[in-house]
Amino acid sequence: MNASSMYRPLSGLNLLRRNADNAGNVRERERIVLESLARIEEVEPTLMAMTAVATREAALQATAQANGPLACMPIVVKDIVDTQALPTCYGSPIYAGHQPPGDAAIVTLLRRAGSVIIGKSATTEFAFMEPTVTRNPCDLARTPGGSSSGSAAAVAAGIVPFAIGSQTGGSTIRPASFCGIAGYKPTFGMLPTVGMKCFSWSFDTIGLFGAGVGDVAYLAQVLSRREVATNGTAVPPVFGVPDGYPWTEPSANASAVLEQAVRAIEHAGGRVQRVRFPPWMADLIDAHHIIQSYEAYLSLGFEYDHHRAKLSSTLADFLEQAAGIDMAAYLNARASMEASRRMLPTLFDGITALLTPSAPDEAPDGLATTGDPAFNRNWTLLGCPCVNVPGLSGARGGPIGVQVIGQPWDDARCIDAAAFVERAIVATVGRVCAN
Amino acid sequence: MNASSMYRPLSGLNLLRRNADNAGNVRERERIVLESLARIEEVEPTLMAMTAVATREAALQATAQANGPLACMPIVVKDIVDTQALPTCYGSPIYAGHQPPGDAAIVTLLRRAGSVIIGKSATTEFAFMEPTVTRNPCDLARTPGGSSSGSAAAVAAGIVPFAIGSQTGGSTIRPASFCGIAGYKPTFGMLPTVGMKCFSWSFDTIGLFGAGVGDVAYLAQVLSRREVATNGTAVPPVFGVPDGYPWTEPSANASAVLEQAVRAIEHAGGRVQRVRFPPWMADLIDAHHIIQSYEAYLSLGFEYDHHRAKLSSTLADFLEQAAGIDMAAYLNARASMEASRRMLPTLFDGITALLTPSAPDEAPDGLATTGDPAFNRNWTLLGCPCVNVPGLSGARGGPIGVQVIGQPWDDARCIDAAAFVERAIVATVGRVCAN
Repeated sequence: MNASSMYRPLSGLNLLRRNADNAGNVRERERIVLESLARIEEVEPTLMAMTAVATREAALQATAQANGPLACMPIVVKDIVDTQALPTCYGSPIYAGHQPPGDAAIVTLLRRAGSVIIGKSATTEFAFMEPTVTRNPCDLARTPGGSSSGSAAAVAAGIVPFAIGSQTGGSTIRPASFCGIAGYKPTFGMLPTVGMKCFSWSFDTIGLFGAGVGDVAYLAQVLSRREVATNGTAVPPVFGVPDGYPWTEPSANASAVLEQAVRAIEHAGGRVQRVRFPPWMADLIDAHHIIQSYEAYLSLGFEYDHHRAKLSSTLADFLEQAAGIDMAAYLNARASMEASRRMLPTLFDGITALLTPSAPDEAPDGLATTGDPAFNRNWTLLGCPCVNVPGLSGARGGPIGVQVIGQPWDDARCIDAAAFVERAIVATVGRVCAN
Repeated sequence: MNASSMYRPLSGLNLLRRNADNAGNVRERERIVLESLARIEEVEPTLMAMTAVATREAALQATAQANGPLACMPIVVKDIVDTQALPTCYGSPIYAGHQPPGDAAIVTLLRRAGSVIIGKSATTEFAFMEPTVTRNPCDLARTPGGSSSGSAAAVAAGIVPFAIGSQTGGSTIRPASFCGIAGYKPTFGMLPTVGMKCFSWSFDTIGLFGAGVGDVAYLAQVLSRREVATNGTAVPPVFGVPDGYPWTEPSANASAVLEQAVRAIEHAGGRVQRVRFPPWMADLIDAHHIIQSYEAYLSLGFEYDHHRAKLSSTLADFLEQAAGIDMAAYLNARASMEASRRMLPTLFDGITALLTPSAPDEAPDGLATTGDPAFNRNWTLLGCPCVNVPGLSGARGGPIGVQVIGQPWDDARCIDAAAFVERAIVATVGRVCAN
């Protein structure tokens, strides 16, 4: 962590415990929310993670009404998710000042659980590749990654213990890796995307951010009302570590971090087995591109036809290419996707979870790119649960996470395995998040 | 058809031919659109099919710019589909006067193809079961069905040659049957639902209305850029007619109409084979209910939490029940759905398409109910293409359609089979739609 660091993640589980210890103490409940607002005032001029912030009055009113397993937990929601009380601009000047008529389903779930939506966090334009102005709390001269730039930065900077993001390619796992926090992309379909601006309906998934694996697991369990968070497996997990990748090769830096995680796992009693990807894994790279392109050209058809001059050239060019993809190519790619989903269990034969780098390297310098989602896209396509486990750093001093990948709807096992890796890393290098 | 009938469907294919014959004649192009507006003025005070109508100026401007395979074809769009130029209220007072910031994807596709959106058509509240005030053009004392009440009524009354609706249970096939027009629910996923108010993301499907099978097939082909409309099969189709149904039994009235269609098919050289549904078909009734309930409680969570007093008691009670369904029950139902989709080909063994009544009877009297979707729900769940073939009438004088059901993504074969049935019926009873 270099000198210009704002890195100070807050554990949501710890905050909830502190809150439980002070049950009924209104001032203490308010203090958690006011601290969040104060932290925004402190860091936001530099961090640029937020697109809208709740007023003190609105936040305190929500706190007074908050009830449930996330009672008065401040949270930020990525600005491609509709909120009635706060403007929602989808990262695009086309929607500057847009006020949706209602809340997205995930916002309803957050409110029902008692959390306080303290603001909207910056997203790249329609959650695609054009960078935001947001900085990385670990190193202000670097990108926090994208597309959930603001959500990852807000959690890493300790503005909030929890944040909602999304992932269509690598938009949750990559920024979590770059910002040194936990990121969790649940199984496709586990959390509702209704009211989130659509880019690609086959892939768009709600993503969750928190300080550690236990935090995101708790958040997912509350929102899905499904057993996700557990207290450790009886049997030590077996991790499959790929011999190589059909996409971008990991940097020496990321490979060294992965091997550090492997040693920590083995030291903690886990097992690691080298695996080789079947040939169909390579085909999915094209399939992801075709499906995403075809769907985005429909989803953003209005913006492309009526507001092309307000789109970034990155997105306009992408959509122009996408216009040429016909339904036959799309259906072939969908068929590849479905065939691969059926073959997926063979990849997990004898394996609890796969373990790969979360990204090909640390966060790139500067804000001109949000980094490369190559290590994430195929798992998004396959609908697999993925967790970025933080705790390790690369040779250039920035965080770099390892990705634990499970089978669809087997989120609890995937989370357990990720928690095992996290404990193993903490045992080796010490806890990063001190609170 | 009784005395109080406004039934006068227009064939879109005929209008397009008339338009092609007058290529370049601006007045002729404008006349088609102005006739549509004039027909609204004439019938709307009684029919109540529309929720918003384009101004003459807006319609003529769109006509001047219209270019493509649907050039200057007037169309109405169900009011659960977002349109930037016209208010979109989702059939609910919660959204009275709501003006969306953009167009739904299907609206973009319509505009790209050159059609002129002449207005929004009435939908039941959020496309669920609470009736609208819309009347049935065939008999003003009866319901047109729902939830796409206005879309079906507008096509049957000759306001427009084409209309966009939707189907989550039986919201396209049922009103088409009641109004004596063609209705087509394409394979789930063929046409984009982005920008359509979500009720149940596993089922919500765009539905199409037109005077006859050729009309809806042409519309689908233009919108999907996929081969759907064909010019008749070389081999006469084989229709599977179920021996019985695990849901509502058809009325004697509907059964007689189905047997009339069977005789027409056999007379035209087609074959009919009696089939028996496997036991899993009955299980899907519950699965549909569970999946739809679970998803609707999330999709309409904002409305339920913040505007319950503005919901009909029909919907509020439904959502209250839905709140009790947990994710485990939902995932079980989804697993049944997926298993059934895999077993579906066995149902089509030796069969070109299935043939059933489209609804258990003619349109009920009065406007207190939109009728029973029992004959449609399972096919929606299975993602099958379904076509309502019009042309026959029941004992009480109202239209009653027969439903042709195909395998997912085999829309062209399903449409071909439906066109065969339509020709067979016309050969028996004469063409209903004279233009």
